[in-house]
Amino acid sequence: MKIIKVGASVTQSNDRDAALLREELRAKGQLMVNLMSSPGSGKTTLLSRLIRDMKDVKIAVMEADIESAVDAERIEALGAQAIQVHTDGMCHMDAGMTRASLEALEDDGAQLIFLENVGNLICPAEYDTGAGLNMMILSVPEGDDKPLKYPLMFEKSDALVITKTDALPYFRFDTALCTARAEKLNPGISVFPVSAKTGEGMTALEEWLRGKLTAWQAGTQKEA
Amino acid sequence: MKIIKVGASVTQSNDRDAALLREELRAKGQLMVNLMSSPGSGKTTLLSRLIRDMKDVKIAVMEADIESAVDAERIEALGAQAIQVHTDGMCHMDAGMTRASLEALEDDGAQLIFLENVGNLICPAEYDTGAGLNMMILSVPEGDDKPLKYPLMFEKSDALVITKTDALPYFRFDTALCTARAEKLNPGISVFPVSAKTGEGMTALEEWLRGKLTAWQAGTQKEA
Repeated sequence: MKIIKVGASVTQSNDRDAALLREELRAKGQLMVNLMSSPGSGKTTLLSRLIRDMKDVKIAVMEADIESAVDAERIEALGAQAIQVHTDGMCHMDAGMTRASLEALEDDGAQLIFLENVGNLICPAEYDTGAGLNMMILSVPEGDDKPLKYPLMFEKSDALVITKTDALPYFRFDTALCTARAEKLNPGISVFPVSAKTGEGMTALEEWLRGKLTAWQAGTQKEA
Repeated sequence: MKIIKVGASVTQSNDRDAALLREELRAKGQLMVNLMSSPGSGKTTLLSRLIRDMKDVKIAVMEADIESAVDAERIEALGAQAIQVHTDGMCHMDAGMTRASLEALEDDGAQLIFLENVGNLICPAEYDTGAGLNMMILSVPEGDDKPLKYPLMFEKSDALVITKTDALPYFRFDTALCTARAEKLNPGISVFPVSAKTGEGMTALEEWLRGKLTAWQAGTQKEA
């Protein structure tokens, strides 16, 4: 009896597709940021704030969701290009789905493309989307124990954005402890506590994104 | 070339396993409640409150998590039997995993067995665990738009518990609108806004659980 193991090959093929997509985006000077979090942690609110604050950078957004178009409508109202991607029940985006989504974006010269992944702390961490940066959000009401429970997401993320810090007086959440737990899993992770509501901490995050975009585009020129 | 479609048969076989498990539990007069939610919505805090309040019912808890044992330790500290189930990276519990977990529970006469599923609003809704009741939690900070985005979870749940209502003054969350959205997807759903912190709304939820347990056990006697 012949036994064919498909799990590994699907992942390998996704890794290959993702690497190819990343290089194509780099050649175009476009940085794609894969934004991951639990449902309701404030991904769209954070993106809305970034779009309002970073007028100097052309931003486009791909909103992945199982259903509904509420997030894309919110982003479009801010004047940025947004498309809604329905995953047909899928709990994550992979490189092929991301490529199809990018092809649906109009070429308006966007430099920074956010992929708002499906709200889920588990499955999205397992699939490389082809993004140049992985950014995760953890909101204060979710609790500082999440690195203990969903370690892979913290390991795969270049940045951890701790959102809803304006709610800190209201919840038991130890930012230093959460940061230490995340850094134990991933010593290179950059941590940004922010409130998209009050604007607290947003400047540091925006400067970091600008720096990453510049480095990404410099990489393009060097290689070209 | 022979093409074998395994997706459907796996689900069918899980449905069969789940139905069998449910009937075995019913014959023993044990009601298993599958508790589902996003990460950080307050499942363990709600369970802790239920255990403290419902001293008249023998409760056991199975905490499913990808890693860590922090939840089971919290429950054990309250004097209820708790086991930690590690899902080895899996984003949900299925009937086979649930059966294995139940076999690891000591038989201490528990009538109400909570399965705290993996924190995830998507995948757990797709797998019948064999539970007699499906209960989901949505916490106020997550937002009242979640029924629009994760409809299957709301369709599959017998009860929606809206937690952290003590944070209502702090977040934009319309309880009536959220309830209407959930009822549109699932007209039979019971909705309980609660604060496990202040105790607000807990009595209604506890009475509902007691009623369901009595009916479940009456069903046993009728069939026996």
